[in-house]
Amino acid sequence: MKITDAKVILTCPGRNFVTLKIITDQGVYGLGDATLNGMEKAVVAFLESYCIPALIGKDPRNTEDIWHYFYRGVYWKRGSVTLTAISAIDMALWDIKGKALNTPLYNLIGGKSRDRVMVYAHANGKDLNDTLEKVAREKEKGFLAIRVQSGIPGISDAYGVAKDSKFYEPAHKGLPNVEQWDTSKYLNYLPYLFGKVRETFGTDLHLLHDAHHRLTPVEAARLAKELEPHHLFWLEDPVTGELQEGLRLIRKQSSTPIAIGEVFNTIYDYTTLITEQLIDYIRMPLVHGGGITHMKKVADFASVYHIQTGFHGATDLSPVNLAAAIHFNMAINNFGIQEYMPHQEIVHEVFKINYRFKDGFLSVDDTPGIGVDIDEEKASRYPYEMACLPVNRKTDGTMFYW
Amino acid sequence: MKITDAKVILTCPGRNFVTLKIITDQGVYGLGDATLNGMEKAVVAFLESYCIPALIGKDPRNTEDIWHYFYRGVYWKRGSVTLTAISAIDMALWDIKGKALNTPLYNLIGGKSRDRVMVYAHANGKDLNDTLEKVAREKEKGFLAIRVQSGIPGISDAYGVAKDSKFYEPAHKGLPNVEQWDTSKYLNYLPYLFGKVRETFGTDLHLLHDAHHRLTPVEAARLAKELEPHHLFWLEDPVTGELQEGLRLIRKQSSTPIAIGEVFNTIYDYTTLITEQLIDYIRMPLVHGGGITHMKKVADFASVYHIQTGFHGATDLSPVNLAAAIHFNMAINNFGIQEYMPHQEIVHEVFKINYRFKDGFLSVDDTPGIGVDIDEEKASRYPYEMACLPVNRKTDGTMFYW
Amino acid sequence: MKITDAKVILTCPGRNFVTLKIITDQGVYGLGDATLNGMEKAVVAFLESYCIPALIGKDPRNTEDIWHYFYRGVYWKRGSVTLTAISAIDMALWDIKGKALNTPLYNLIGGKSRDRVMVYAHANGKDLNDTLEKVAREKEKGFLAIRVQSGIPGISDAYGVAKDSKFYEPAHKGLPNVEQWDTSKYLNYLPYLFGKVRETFGTDLHLLHDAHHRLTPVEAARLAKELEPHHLFWLEDPVTGELQEGLRLIRKQSSTPIAIGEVFNTIYDYTTLITEQLIDYIRMPLVHGGGITHMKKVADFASVYHIQTGFHGATDLSPVNLAAAIHFNMAINNFGIQEYMPHQEIVHEVFKINYRFKDGFLSVDDTPGIGVDIDEEKASRYPYEMACLPVNRKTDGTMFYW
Amino acid sequence: MKITDAKVILTCPGRNFVTLKIITDQGVYGLGDATLNGMEKAVVAFLESYCIPALIGKDPRNTEDIWHYFYRGVYWKRGSVTLTAISAIDMALWDIKGKALNTPLYNLIGGKSRDRVMVYAHANGKDLNDTLEKVAREKEKGFLAIRVQSGIPGISDAYGVAKDSKFYEPAHKGLPNVEQWDTSKYLNYLPYLFGKVRETFGTDLHLLHDAHHRLTPVEAARLAKELEPHHLFWLEDPVTGELQEGLRLIRKQSSTPIAIGEVFNTIYDYTTLITEQLIDYIRMPLVHGGGITHMKKVADFASVYHIQTGFHGATDLSPVNLAAAIHFNMAINNFGIQEYMPHQEIVHEVFKINYRFKDGFLSVDDTPGIGVDIDEEKASRYPYEMACLPVNRKTDGTMFYW
Repeated sequence: MKITDAKVILTCPGRNFVTLKIITDQGVYGLGDATLNGMEKAVVAFLESYCIPALIGKDPRNTEDIWHYFYRGVYWKRGSVTLTAISAIDMALWDIKGKALNTPLYNLIGGKSRDRVMVYAHANGKDLNDTLEKVAREKEKGFLAIRVQSGIPGISDAYGVAKDSKFYEPAHKGLPNVEQWDTSKYLNYLPYLFGKVRETFGTDLHLLHDAHHRLTPVEAARLAKELEPHHLFWLEDPVTGELQEGLRLIRKQSSTPIAIGEVFNTIYDYTTLITEQLIDYIRMPLVHGGGITHMKKVADFASVYHIQTGFHGATDLSPVNLAAAIHFNMAINNFGIQEYMPHQEIVHEVFKINYRFKDGFLSVDDTPGIGVDIDEEKASRYPYEMACLPVNRKTDGTMFYW
Repeated sequence: MKITDAKVILTCPGRNFVTLKIITDQGVYGLGDATLNGMEKAVVAFLESYCIPALIGKDPRNTEDIWHYFYRGVYWKRGSVTLTAISAIDMALWDIKGKALNTPLYNLIGGKSRDRVMVYAHANGKDLNDTLEKVAREKEKGFLAIRVQSGIPGISDAYGVAKDSKFYEPAHKGLPNVEQWDTSKYLNYLPYLFGKVRETFGTDLHLLHDAHHRLTPVEAARLAKELEPHHLFWLEDPVTGELQEGLRLIRKQSSTPIAIGEVFNTIYDYTTLITEQLIDYIRMPLVHGGGITHMKKVADFASVYHIQTGFHGATDLSPVNLAAAIHFNMAINNFGIQEYMPHQEIVHEVFKINYRFKDGFLSVDDTPGIGVDIDEEKASRYPYEMACLPVNRKTDGTMFYW
Repeated sequence: MKITDAKVILTCPGRNFVTLKIITDQGVYGLGDATLNGMEKAVVAFLESYCIPALIGKDPRNTEDIWHYFYRGVYWKRGSVTLTAISAIDMALWDIKGKALNTPLYNLIGGKSRDRVMVYAHANGKDLNDTLEKVAREKEKGFLAIRVQSGIPGISDAYGVAKDSKFYEPAHKGLPNVEQWDTSKYLNYLPYLFGKVRETFGTDLHLLHDAHHRLTPVEAARLAKELEPHHLFWLEDPVTGELQEGLRLIRKQSSTPIAIGEVFNTIYDYTTLITEQLIDYIRMPLVHGGGITHMKKVADFASVYHIQTGFHGATDLSPVNLAAAIHFNMAINNFGIQEYMPHQEIVHEVFKINYRFKDGFLSVDDTPGIGVDIDEEKASRYPYEMACLPVNRKTDGTMFYW
Repeated sequence: MKITDAKVILTCPGRNFVTLKIITDQGVYGLGDATLNGMEKAVVAFLESYCIPALIGKDPRNTEDIWHYFYRGVYWKRGSVTLTAISAIDMALWDIKGKALNTPLYNLIGGKSRDRVMVYAHANGKDLNDTLEKVAREKEKGFLAIRVQSGIPGISDAYGVAKDSKFYEPAHKGLPNVEQWDTSKYLNYLPYLFGKVRETFGTDLHLLHDAHHRLTPVEAARLAKELEPHHLFWLEDPVTGELQEGLRLIRKQSSTPIAIGEVFNTIYDYTTLITEQLIDYIRMPLVHGGGITHMKKVADFASVYHIQTGFHGATDLSPVNLAAAIHFNMAINNFGIQEYMPHQEIVHEVFKINYRFKDGFLSVDDTPGIGVDIDEEKASRYPYEMACLPVNRKTDGTMFYW
């Protein structure tokens, strides 16, 4: 079996998606998600100028060898662009393998450990009351776990809150918006917010929150400690993760579970975090974390240290990634939860999906491989439009983490 | 002062170089190297699709703020593509600052700590005798320090050895060559090789060697220990560096100095290596390590722990990076050595340089800023051609580090 | 460019200040603060007997080399006298560089990361009510952050509280006052005090407190933990810092942010504190911490570990240091806060300043270099008068930390 | 008993010495050495402007309280100037106590643990043969232990070697000499040198060597390992000691005993070195290490970790310090060795001494107190002359450790 061709499909049905399609001499093709929000063009360029020519002629069944070919072969290794390309290649190869063997992906990586995977929704409210309403709305939809973000009194741009539209989408057309931030006001408000949420919705609902890298370790420790009475499912990205040791202080101070890594790319971003047991959930998604091949190793490593998966799953990843994640989550033992921010309907014109949401869970059907297909003709109707995530400044102008 | 325009110049005078040119409203422009061997197109795409639009209108003097704008603003951060783009921006901004203030770069980052910087040459021999000849040839040119690589008996493709040409250039036109490797033969040969080199050239010549990531920690410990009698200036990249703790074993076993990091991108790649004092030299170059702004922080951090600089400086970096590196090396106190692999003459048709080699040292003149200029018309005569670094397999076929 | 002369100006407009003036062959001169409270004469003697003769003839642009000349060249290195002298030299050289290149200091060390820097005021009350009044008074002046010190019931001399004058000045003419101290009473009172302050002023005001080295680690841990509900911006100098490991216990017990180091002198005083992330703010000021050259390294090192600056800035440092600190704080990314204890008006007869306070922030104008000048004739009208900081005894007579 | 007066005697019988004389109401006075090579004026200024006024009226018997008065009372604490002044005060108080009780100092700090203390001599040779001759000469004088320094082929200024006079004195009149250094040549020569010394003088002679802070940890590890066959008594100051962790690597690599700290000032400079057992000998002398009171604590702490004393004792310390050191060395259990570089005869015109050298040992007589007196009239005949230790540059101009 040989790879005879491959191509990149860049489409913008509401937002940009990059899809790698690998074609074989046996009529079978595979799809991999290669979407990297705001950096789509760099991934496309790398795939087209280096990866695709190198793929032609390779046997697509050799996923392990091809993974190392691109990981080790790309001498100037590491980083989001490289690993997103590798992820897309790996995902497409596993899709091919499933289709060639006429079996769904989960069956190739361990079979079913469960039939469906619990997901969490987003509730993003402008203020306290709006936030409580949004939580109620998601609860009514059947979600058992909800990430709660809220506008903060005195802060013009809290993370995760739509300013003017019903549908929250962090990326905006054109250059990055410049948002403003005040950690002190946020820290004063958050415990109060979650007190109110718990008061309104009781103890059974799983509540999550994303601090989005905006805290120093000591600030994160304070927040994690003050949120303890409200029993969060997790506190996400309390500090930026480049310095893995930066998570130690939180752990000394609090028993609030910690999730991190939606911006990570390799198992090496997690070594200290895992072996020192500084976290509880792995956020790195298949699409940026090296695909099925690499993420299986990360999840297995994490399992030794009582750590579970909780993959990133916002609308900035395509249905190909989401479907692959459901397969993955069904197969491994140490699955925790899966983020689920449904795509707009227009996305499903382009991508034909095989998963559905019911009663707080997602599941896939038995379509071979990953099970998502792309309609290239429709994709071509939505050409790429530049769109960027915001940048963030403190109120004194300091360039800060978004 | 405002940035009014910027553009990317991709040229291939013998090999590919990416140059960022930032233009201001005051007639002053700056140049930054953005070359990333084999991934040029990805860097170009990222610069053109994201960085350049975002640069327009910014005040070029605010180097710290702009650095963080791109480092933090690129949400999916880290990695060679992102950091190479940031490096090029930062380098160009310091070039502008020097020109605007009419002073050479070194004067802005500490003045002169020395007038010239010791460099090391490459001697790459097909076999023992050829290697000894190559060392002799570089020594005659005046080099005081020479990196010695040699063909290994029984290995078809040792790292660093030209197969068929006089001029060693690791990148080849077209797809990656597949080379073959046998660690055991290498380990058996190396101490013998260096014994012969010392026997021939005496104790004064500084000898370096690059293991090019191909050893496990225990193999590296053996090699480092067995090379002790030959007093290497450094042993480079003894193991791959993604796992910083991977260097601990060598350090327990040997006093051979260790250099690492030509493929690194940020200070976070060095935190364990520096604070645990596992290395002696920083290899990360300005062009991939975040430019002047970030590398100054890395070098200063390293200095606290008795670690010196020894920047990567092969032909895969443009004269803009090399000149900036000489300024940098002249200014800091903890300079160690600079790699110097001279560009082919054709490169100097495109880039007008301000540095010269004499008696084993490189120095720059007092041209303001970085002091290198590019002839865009000549650059346009040499369009990009795909070229890749090799990949490497063990003799049993295992995909391995190149 | 050569240094042709230098002199020390010792003046006492209300309190003693030591200023180093370095003069060049190009008509440009630079000023550096060399004030070391109570030890002024030792710094003057060292500058005059060693540093000034050694400076003559040197090129003032070589800031890095000259820094090491005095740091390494002073064989019996380290300590406040040596480093204050080196700081003054370094500050004056950067002042010269800015003037020679006709650009403000901040532009040489990264440009602007913000336009103004948040400062904190001192509120020192004799008792609870007086303290609340003093906080209110500073708040009315526009300060967003206030350090709160208070007389403690049963303690005759709490740190930071004026006994008999409106203007608090810790140094007194003549020999050291002997104050008295009782840690137990202090620990019992402090949480109550801050409870009242928060009750009166709400959650938005930033509150700081200085324990002034008077606690053991276990006492500091108790205090830091009991202050958690009141959300201090920082707790300063909870224990004396000679033993860096002495801060570990606090960190295990509390999420109250910690600041330390106004009496520190080099980066080596911070290595354990930074790499083990035991603190959140760097207190070492430019004038005692090796000037711009060294403090940039300290701030950058700290930034890797999520630590920010919060420089000492009491009236015991001259306007030259304060202006330099504002430049520095404007340029770096990891600025936290700046202490600001305004000088008496008489000080501004001698020093012509370029900064101003507004709405809780300090800013400098665009005068080249540091931007502060000294009127030597006026300085000569206020000759040195011996003045010392107090010493401190426990109630049983034990000599203790002040 | 009260202190009624104190004065500083600055004299230059061949080289500068600072002596503190404390006078009491009972006719007894004490002497303390306050010599700090090249920084004499700063110590004098600090003693005269702060310490002496504060001493008047105190009870000289309260050595512990007075020590803390000056250590803690000097708010901007630490460093050579402060601690040298404190050392001189402490030494003079112990001298007074001994005289007042009519008993030699050793009797107050533990009595005699031995009658005499082994010392080591300096042998400084221009080249190999000269070095061997110098060793022979010291051996003939009866020394059992000899520090061997030698001119290095190809290095113009090796540490410790007189260029043009018979009497080696590191300080020179006027501004610092600029010396030049090449570590590589030194490392290549040293093992050969010590091989020749051992070959010539056999295994019984104790050999010491001072690397004088000029090595990085990895270089020091190499040297310590390669000197192992020659069984040094100690290798001194292999790396500069500001970063105590910097000694770890040597310890992992070699069993050569290590001495460090002639430039240290407090017990905090030794905490990591002692508790991690990175060294074998304490070099900090009484005169810079806080006097009898503080050094007793340092020596006692060291004893817990099998570490012995080996105090600095070059001609840059006055006979007062040397006599006090002999008392100290006689009294403690964990004495190792004492450096002894005899003063020129002219020194003994000014200082009347109570110690003598015999058969490789120094001993003091039973004169009460420290037992050295100063002839103030003769001292006044030799006024202070500026003299400095050299500074040191690498051959490329890099400012380096002397």
